[in-house]
Amino acid sequence: MIKTDIIIIGAGPTGLFAVFEAGLLKLKCHLIDALPQPGGQCSEIYPKKPIYDIPGFPEVLAGDLVKNLMEQIRPFEPGFTLGERAETIDKQSDGSFIVTTNKGTQHQAPVVVIAGGLGSFEPRKPPIANIADYEDNGVAYIIRDPEIYRGKRVVIAGGGDSALDWSIYLADIASEVALVHRRKDFRGALDSVEKVEELSKLGRINLITDAEVVGLQGEDKLDAVVIRHKDTARGEEVKEVDNFIPLFGLSPKLGPIADWGLEIEKNAIKVNNAYDYETSIPGVYAIGDVNTYPGKLKLILCGFHEAAIMCQSAYQKIFPDKKYVMKYTTVSGVSGFDGSKKEAKKEVVKSIN
Amino acid sequence: MIKTDIIIIGAGPTGLFAVFEAGLLKLKCHLIDALPQPGGQCSEIYPKKPIYDIPGFPEVLAGDLVKNLMEQIRPFEPGFTLGERAETIDKQSDGSFIVTTNKGTQHQAPVVVIAGGLGSFEPRKPPIANIADYEDNGVAYIIRDPEIYRGKRVVIAGGGDSALDWSIYLADIASEVALVHRRKDFRGALDSVEKVEELSKLGRINLITDAEVVGLQGEDKLDAVVIRHKDTARGEEVKEVDNFIPLFGLSPKLGPIADWGLEIEKNAIKVNNAYDYETSIPGVYAIGDVNTYPGKLKLILCGFHEAAIMCQSAYQKIFPDKKYVMKYTTVSGVSGFDGSKKEAKKEVVKSIN
Repeated sequence: MIKTDIIIIGAGPTGLFAVFEAGLLKLKCHLIDALPQPGGQCSEIYPKKPIYDIPGFPEVLAGDLVKNLMEQIRPFEPGFTLGERAETIDKQSDGSFIVTTNKGTQHQAPVVVIAGGLGSFEPRKPPIANIADYEDNGVAYIIRDPEIYRGKRVVIAGGGDSALDWSIYLADIASEVALVHRRKDFRGALDSVEKVEELSKLGRINLITDAEVVGLQGEDKLDAVVIRHKDTARGEEVKEVDNFIPLFGLSPKLGPIADWGLEIEKNAIKVNNAYDYETSIPGVYAIGDVNTYPGKLKLILCGFHEAAIMCQSAYQKIFPDKKYVMKYTTVSGVSGFDGSKKEAKKEVVKSIN
Repeated sequence: MIKTDIIIIGAGPTGLFAVFEAGLLKLKCHLIDALPQPGGQCSEIYPKKPIYDIPGFPEVLAGDLVKNLMEQIRPFEPGFTLGERAETIDKQSDGSFIVTTNKGTQHQAPVVVIAGGLGSFEPRKPPIANIADYEDNGVAYIIRDPEIYRGKRVVIAGGGDSALDWSIYLADIASEVALVHRRKDFRGALDSVEKVEELSKLGRINLITDAEVVGLQGEDKLDAVVIRHKDTARGEEVKEVDNFIPLFGLSPKLGPIADWGLEIEKNAIKVNNAYDYETSIPGVYAIGDVNTYPGKLKLILCGFHEAAIMCQSAYQKIFPDKKYVMKYTTVSGVSGFDGSKKEAKKEVVKSIN
C-alpha cells in the first residue's frame, strides 16, 4: 500500500504543478497515470508542438513545458505509478481513500485529486477478433521500452507520426521492421515521412502499403500476422513475426472514474469553482480539463490556478486545526523534501565608513 | 480621447497577460499605470528577485518574467499610458466608460479591467514642509529619465537599493552626486553597497552619512538643500544643488479607485469568482492581487487565470450577439494585430510509392 498526503490521478501539466503547490504546504503527492511517462497529452500526443498561451512563454514546446514542470517539482519528490489506470476508489472508515489501479496497485491518502484531463488515453485497437489473446504476449499498443524489441521481427501498423517515428527508431534495434498501412499516404512530420521513405529504399524498413493486418496466429504467443492486400491478385499473406504493434492513436475516455459516484456533466466532473474545486464527494477534488463549472475554460493555465486553490483547501482538510499562513516564494524561497533550498539572495546590511 | 476595447488599469504581470488573452479574442487593450514602465512591482520593486512559483519556470527573475510577457503580448500592440494614475471613471449614456488620469489623459472603452495589484505605488516622501513646492521643479521621487540629470548637481537621499543603484548610475552622468543617509548602514545587494563604497573613495560619490535633508531652498526652482548632521558639532549645512531625489521606497495605496463606488473588502475589490471576476459595477472587472473572493490567493498565477476567464465575459459584453468558439493556440496559432502569425508546423500528408 502506497501512503501519501494527496493522490493525484493524472500526471499531465495540471497534476504535475499540483505537486509543487502541495509541496509548498509540506504535503506529499503520488501521481497515477495510465500513460508510461509523465506529461499527459503534452508528452504523448504533441511533445513537439509549440504552445503559445502559457503565461511568460511566448512559445514553448509541450514536451519542454513538461520537462520544466518536472524540474520545478523535483524538490518535492513526488511518487509515480505509471502505465496503470486508476480503477476504483474506496472510502475508509477513517475518512481516507484507497485508490486501486487496473494492475492492483493500491494507494491511500486523505485527499484525492483528479487531474485526469480528457480522461485516460486508451489506444484505438484494430478490429481483429482474437487480438486480446495476444496483448502483452506479442501485441502492444504503446511502446514502453523499445529495448524489448531488440533482435525481434516487428510489424507496426498505422500511417501517422507514431507509426512513422517508431518504425524509424526500431529499424536500428529490431532484426526486421515491417510497416503496414492501408494507404500509400502518410500523415505526419515531413522529416519522418521522408526518413521512412529513405529507410524503405535502403531495405531497412519493409514498407507494406495498401494493406492491413487482419489476423493473428500463434499458440501460446504471437507467431504470425495475416496481411491482406488491397490488390486482390496478391490476396492474403501470412508473415512470421515476434511482435505486432498497431499504432492507431489514442482516444481519451473518462473511464472508470465515471463510475465513482461523482456528479458528471458533459463528460466532465462538476466542481465548486466558487471555492476550492471540490467535487460532489468531500475530499475528492477535480482540477484541469477534467472538471467543469460555469465559465470553465479548458486551458493549461487555468489548471495551474485550480491546483493552487485546491491545495489550500486540501491542507485544511488534512490539518483541520492548523492555520496556514501563505508565504511568498520570493520571500521565503522553496524548501524541498530532499533537503534542497532555493531562495533569493538575501540583501545585506553593510556599513560604509 | 484614447479609444479601445478594454482599458486595463495596472500594467503588472496580470494586466499584461490580459492583453494576450484579449488579443486571442481580437480585442484591443490599453494599459494605464502610475509607474513609468510596465511590470508593476516585478519591475519597480524586485526585478532581480527570483520567483519560484510561476508554472513552468523552476526559477525566473521578476524582471525577466515581465520581459517575456511583453514579448508574448507584442503581436497585440497594446497601448500604454504610463506614469499617470487612473483617477476617475465615468459611465457614459452608451454604456461605455471614460477613465481619466491625474494628468487629464482620457480613455474610453466598453469594458474596464482593474489589475491594480496592491494599488498604485506612491513614493514615501520625506517630511519636509515645502517639498510639494519643488515637485517636478528640482524634486523627484522616481527617476523616469536619468538623462535629465546630465551635468547637474544631484542629492539623493536613502539607504536602500534604489538610492544605492541610482547613485552609482548617476555618478557617470551628473556633475556631482551626493548620497545622504541617516545611518552608516546601507541595506541592499552586496555588490551595490561595495560599489558605492568604492565610488565614494574615488571621490565620485559624495557620501554623507549620519545626516538627513531637512529643508529645501530656492525661488522658482530648487537651489539648495539643508543637510542636518547627527553630529551636533557639525550642525546644519546648506548645499547648492540642482536636484533632490529622495528614494525612500514606494508604498501601495488603492488610491482613487477606492472611491469609484466598487464594493470593497479588506482594501481589495470584491468580485464574483464563481463566474467571471466582475465587480459590483457591471462592465468593470478586477483581476489579480487587487481583487478578493472566498479562498482568494494573491499569486501571479491566479491573476493569469482570472485574466483568461474575464476576457471571455468581456467579449460577450462587447459582442452580445456573437458566440465565441475557443480555439487552442496549439491548433490555430496566434494571429497578431501587427499582421504576425505564429503557428505550429503543419503536418503533411505525403505518399510513399
